[in-house]
Formats: sequence, C-alpha cells, structure tokens
Amino acid sequence: MRGALTPERWIEAATDVLADRGIDSVRIDLLAQQLQVTRGSFYWHFRDRDELLRRVLGAWRDHATLQLTARLERAHPDPREQLRDVISLPVRGRAAQRAARIELAIRAWARHDALARQSVDEADGARIVYIAQLFSALGFGVAEARWRAFALYAYVVAESQIAAPIAQLQREERDRFIERLMLQPLDAQT
Amino acid sequence: MRGALTPERWIEAATDVLADRGIDSVRIDLLAQQLQVTRGSFYWHFRDRDELLRRVLGAWRDHATLQLTARLERAHPDPREQLRDVISLPVRGRAAQRAARIELAIRAWARHDALARQSVDEADGARIVYIAQLFSALGFGVAEARWRAFALYAYVVAESQIAAPIAQLQREERDRFIERLMLQPLDAQT
Repeated sequence: MRGALTPERWIEAATDVLADRGIDSVRIDLLAQQLQVTRGSFYWHFRDRDELLRRVLGAWRDHATLQLTARLERAHPDPREQLRDVISLPVRGRAAQRAARIELAIRAWARHDALARQSVDEADGARIVYIAQLFSALGFGVAEARWRAFALYAYVVAESQIAAPIAQLQREERDRFIERLMLQPLDAQT
Repeated sequence: MRGALTPERWIEAATDVLADRGIDSVRIDLLAQQLQVTRGSFYWHFRDRDELLRRVLGAWRDHATLQLTARLERAHPDPREQLRDVISLPVRGRAAQRAARIELAIRAWARHDALARQSVDEADGARIVYIAQLFSALGFGVAEARWRAFALYAYVVAESQIAAPIAQLQREERDRFIERLMLQPLDAQT
C-alpha cells in the first residue's frame, strides 16, 4: 500500500530537502509528490507542517548530538582518548558530508526561526559542555575548560564546513598538532 | 523617477533577501515589488538573475574579505596587534550580526551551487592565508603557521555563528586566553 509510509520516512525526506534546498522548499505537497503518496496521507502522521519540522529538529538532535556523544563515551573511558576522537571525527565520506549539509541548513534556518534557533543553541551548548567535561577531567579549571572546549569545538565545526583543500595525511598531521596545542597548559609568562 | 535605482541598490536588496530567507527567495519579481519598481527596470542593469547573483557574491567578497584585511593591516603594522584585532572582531551589534547572517546564507547556498562554493572557498582561503602570514611573521614555520591560522579562523567564525550565551566581559577574557594559547609555542615534550 503506497500510502503506508512511516513518519520516519517523511522526516527523512524533509531533512533531505532541507539540506539540499533550504527550509522554504520543505513543503508537504512537494514531499508527497516526491514520495509518491497523497498529500492527505501526511496527516495520518502529523498535525501540520510545524509538527513535521519539530520532528526534523528532534531527529537531528538525537542523531547529531546525543548518539554522537554516547558513542564517543562508549568508545573510550579515557578523556584524552575521547578528545582525540572528537578532533578526528570524519569530515569526508558521504555520511559526514550529509551531516554537515544538514547542520549548515539548520543553522541558516535558525537565523530567522525561533524553534530552529533553540535547537541549534541546545546542540552547540550540549557539545561544548561535553568537551568541557573532558578538559575538566584532565585537570583544567572550570572557566579554562570551557574556553578550550569552545575553541576545540570551533575547530571541529570548521573542519566539516570549511573546504580549504587539504589532503587526508596533512589533515591528520594538523589534527595531531591541534590536539597538542589545545591540551598544553598556558605558560605563566606568555 | 522610480525606476532609476542604482545596480548597488538591487545588489543590496538581493543580499538582504538572501540573508533573511535563503537563495531560493532571491527572485527578480519579488525584488522589483519590494523596491517598488517595474520588473523590466532590472534589465537596465543586469543581463539576468545569474549576473545579479555574481554581483552579490562579488560585493560580499569586497566587503567581508578585501576591505576587512586591508583595514586590519592599516590599523597596526605589528602582526601580534593584528592577530589581537582578528580575535576581537566584533560579533555583536547590527552590522556584525548582518554580516554573520549573510555569510551563513552564502555558505548554505554554496552547498548546492558551484559559483557560491567558489566564492566561499576563496574567502576562507584568503582569510586563512592572511592570518597564516601573521603567524609566519611571528616566527612560526610555514606548516605550523597555517595550522594555527586555521584554528584561529575557526574560533573567530564560531564566535560569530555560535550563540552560546556569553557576556561581553567573559568573551573578552576568553579572547585573551585564546590569543595566548594560539601564540604559545608547543612544548617539545607534550
């Protein structure tokens, strides 16, 4: 039965359109056409477009923040190893590129939408707090751990969004350098 | 005479719409309506929408990259002072917020448009090269100067795009900390 899509299928399709064309192109009629179902079948799962958009943001949060930090924590109990993993998050490959596209589209959307803004702020906040905890666990003071976390997070975001041409080998070299720089205590006299 | 707009006025209006609603909303008919001129008068200045978009990207490059680096260089001949200025670029205030909105919209557009992609890559490249030269002037090796420049640039971009709530005073404290961190030579043993 063609109309029997799961809500997840609608959310995924809406996320793809958002990533490729921006939020204004996420329209129920176009999605229905693309999924080859009736427009009416949308309303079996969602009250309206706003509910779909809330679910899109929720799915993004689950995938790009909660699952990610849980995965990193599971992989290594050691905070130093976790930091290394954060720095080395893949930026090439289809899944990483798609994730970067989605995130950029949501950030652009958040510039003129309060709900998207709130999701983005929560995601940034949660990731920075997670990284700050790692620096705290390594002995840095609370404020300094937050500053280092912000700078490190900025670096990771830039790696996925700034396409400055860099070979994989050079990128690994840069990652290792930044890891050392970010972990080095400040000299008292500088 | 109502039809007698300058090309700059069209470029500015297109840039505003781009920043607020995304590239798909930049349409000649809507711009003409907003500017209260005929659609035909657009063609006094531009061959087509593509030419308008090229001019929008050109204006962004002039303003956000060329004029900016020239202003920083003029303000201080000393590279260390220039680095401090780069770190302290204002992120609050209407002009800075508008610039951040424009830049984010162009980055989102660049995800599915080759021309915008090229402009963004050029802008990122030019800014990173400029910052890398400052680190080189301070005595860091070529590769290391580029890595530091990338990390510092990432930090500055994040300050304008990540809305983690931070008071102005704390931001200044963080900026000074990051300046020291980024300028500190790596310890041989870390």
